[in-house]
Amino acid sequence: MEKIRPRTLSGFMELMPAPQVQLERMMQILRETYELYGFTPLDTPVMESSEILLAKGGGETEKQIYRFQKGDSDLALRFDLTVPLAKYVALHAGELAFPFRRYQIGKVYRGERAQRGRFREFYQADIDIIGDGKLDILNEAEIPSIIHTIFKRFGLKRFVIRVNNRKLLNGFYALLGLSERSGDIMRTVDKLDKIGVENVQKILLDEGFESEKVSEILRFMQIKGTNAEVLAALDAWKGQNETFDLGLAELTTVATHLTAFGVPEENFAVDLTIARGLDYYTGTVYETTLLDYPEIGSVCSGGRYDNLAEYYTDRQLPGVGISIGLTRLFYVLGEQGLLNDKLVTAPADCMLIPMTEDLGAAVGLATLLRNSGVRTQIYSEQRKFKAKIQYADKLGIPYVIFLGDDEIVQGVCAVKCLATGEQVSLSPEEAAKLILSGIANEGTVIIEKER
Amino acid sequence: MEKIRPRTLSGFMELMPAPQVQLERMMQILRETYELYGFTPLDTPVMESSEILLAKGGGETEKQIYRFQKGDSDLALRFDLTVPLAKYVALHAGELAFPFRRYQIGKVYRGERAQRGRFREFYQADIDIIGDGKLDILNEAEIPSIIHTIFKRFGLKRFVIRVNNRKLLNGFYALLGLSERSGDIMRTVDKLDKIGVENVQKILLDEGFESEKVSEILRFMQIKGTNAEVLAALDAWKGQNETFDLGLAELTTVATHLTAFGVPEENFAVDLTIARGLDYYTGTVYETTLLDYPEIGSVCSGGRYDNLAEYYTDRQLPGVGISIGLTRLFYVLGEQGLLNDKLVTAPADCMLIPMTEDLGAAVGLATLLRNSGVRTQIYSEQRKFKAKIQYADKLGIPYVIFLGDDEIVQGVCAVKCLATGEQVSLSPEEAAKLILSGIANEGTVIIEKER
Repeated sequence: MEKIRPRTLSGFMELMPAPQVQLERMMQILRETYELYGFTPLDTPVMESSEILLAKGGGETEKQIYRFQKGDSDLALRFDLTVPLAKYVALHAGELAFPFRRYQIGKVYRGERAQRGRFREFYQADIDIIGDGKLDILNEAEIPSIIHTIFKRFGLKRFVIRVNNRKLLNGFYALLGLSERSGDIMRTVDKLDKIGVENVQKILLDEGFESEKVSEILRFMQIKGTNAEVLAALDAWKGQNETFDLGLAELTTVATHLTAFGVPEENFAVDLTIARGLDYYTGTVYETTLLDYPEIGSVCSGGRYDNLAEYYTDRQLPGVGISIGLTRLFYVLGEQGLLNDKLVTAPADCMLIPMTEDLGAAVGLATLLRNSGVRTQIYSEQRKFKAKIQYADKLGIPYVIFLGDDEIVQGVCAVKCLATGEQVSLSPEEAAKLILSGIANEGTVIIEKER
Repeated sequence: MEKIRPRTLSGFMELMPAPQVQLERMMQILRETYELYGFTPLDTPVMESSEILLAKGGGETEKQIYRFQKGDSDLALRFDLTVPLAKYVALHAGELAFPFRRYQIGKVYRGERAQRGRFREFYQADIDIIGDGKLDILNEAEIPSIIHTIFKRFGLKRFVIRVNNRKLLNGFYALLGLSERSGDIMRTVDKLDKIGVENVQKILLDEGFESEKVSEILRFMQIKGTNAEVLAALDAWKGQNETFDLGLAELTTVATHLTAFGVPEENFAVDLTIARGLDYYTGTVYETTLLDYPEIGSVCSGGRYDNLAEYYTDRQLPGVGISIGLTRLFYVLGEQGLLNDKLVTAPADCMLIPMTEDLGAAVGLATLLRNSGVRTQIYSEQRKFKAKIQYADKLGIPYVIFLGDDEIVQGVCAVKCLATGEQVSLSPEEAAKLILSGIANEGTVIIEKER
């Protein structure tokens, strides 16, 4: 028979078993943490009517989308989780209780040009809190706490959640009389880190801004220091513009609750240069960067918006949300060698090798171990002894149990730890206890390395 | 602005938050149980090259598949998890350790005619054990144990895992000299439950089978009794055909290990009428039915096959696997009213209502509760007190905590159980303990009802 060459589409991540287990751990941490903060899981279809997904229309999205006809239907695959959320909330607004706090971890699709580290199918892990008409500022203050808990549980310490406020920025440009050109200015200021102060200054002057106002913009953008120092420095512009004052009050609220929310000062920074590309955001905005890997960019971003579902409903639905690009984050962590290879990624905690013809006793022991919570595989294939041990080794199974006639008679089993080579004869209950305690301290998914 | 009417495609399940939580519980049980038995999680792309997915070609599959062009690529959405597994194993055979035991819970797509209870996007939850060249029979004996553990954890008791063996059937037809027409006979015999013995007999006679052989077929198919009785009755045909004898030996092995694998006799039956539609199966075959809901059909099926990936590789890769159609199962359970509405489906275990202007103490308490594992939501919206309680009620949040000036001064909080109305003043640590113990006994996802 003619064979078809097996292959996976380029731009589609398909992991080998061990890294897949690491990714699953990260997903489990995301689910547990989001739930700890009172978010409910949501699962919307991967496919929607094109009319729904492209309601906003235009831009890169339309070019990248996977869109196709099936019968009479014009269908498309979702390119993010926000548009399906907007549809869901607009569709079910009458049945939902607001604030509606949901998380969703799901695959999204973008037909980007294939290149290393760019994916056409990738996971996003989103949370959003949607209010009906209004939404209290405390929700915006809570977000850094959620990000902090997740990254800490992943095993990261050297990261910073950078926070700014769009009202503060808009108010600042308004009091300079530059509201209408604020978009241009923010695009230029966004390059501050990359091209430096002088170049930013030059571009702004070239674009025709008065030198006095350019100086003030740069003075504002270069405010540095502890959060308290930055907030104090911002007082200089207070009282001139209502939007600015409101933004400053919101930013102060967000910073104030940090300690009570369990976020150490070292993992949080008020950063006035952050604006987020989307016009969509109207209040607090967030970016999260890894201190030792600034080239990765933000690994968790989002912000406050005033109108989630304006394309589907007249109902005013403000919200705040963040998104983690999980597939890209996982890829980058792997590339940097930050994934903990001490983590048990084996499909089983122990492999049971029956040494007798009759397998009844081995099956009974496996059942007992499983009932104790030990992930157990019985290896009954007819292979040489050495091949069996190599199999356990290759998979990284930490314990092997031998069960021969002598053990069966004595009601014990021989438990061998493959890492140390140590072998002990134990009752089934003791064996379960030994194995469970042996795998208990494997550490976090990510192990940071200093650079 | 012109609004687009929000809608979800027909045939695509999109659940409200409470049932979504119930479905997530079932998925968590599937993941945990599959892992207990030594299966590793796998995640393959939803999209593949059409050439890969349609390698087998023909039939209903080709008509139902979602297939489309993007640039130069002919793409399609997977219609099951078996074909992507075959591709994966063929592609990575050199790196995998065999037997390769994987589970996958993922969405698959079939553009079926829309009708109630039929889905175009649905979850399958599969396990497979793939051998390299050969695979021990014990793997086939282990499968009923996995099915039994899952259904028991779901909360089901009144179900039967029906098992048969294709070698036994093929051998039986061979010893009657009817090998070439065995497909026709099995298709007719498959209707035994629906149309009765007389009608099956009539059809077979009409199709030109000798009346003596028809009697023998019906005698064979109507063997009933305990597993031991059925196996003993099969001895009558032993010694006439090698394939039959091998099938009987395999079926005996599968039945023999039941007790040691923890499967009670009442949840297992040797059923000679089961064949499974696919030509694909070559050994043990499984179907699982709910005793009180026979009209649902099999909710977990599968079997042993000899050649997983023949379209992609010359390598002989025998295996055994089962699949649960999770979306359909969940839908049917809901329709039958079997989902446990006592399950906490709220996004939080407790809702904290701050009764003071300054929210610092409330934030600190929420952080402490979350660190103790209590899923906590702070409700800080400016609403009337009654509206806040209604919110908790609507979501089914079991506990509400009030934190006013008096409580803050005394270092306590007021915990109210919404089900009993009972309110107590507790330290934060005591509150966490009370809430965690209160939600500990909510029962299983499914509650069976007698019919």
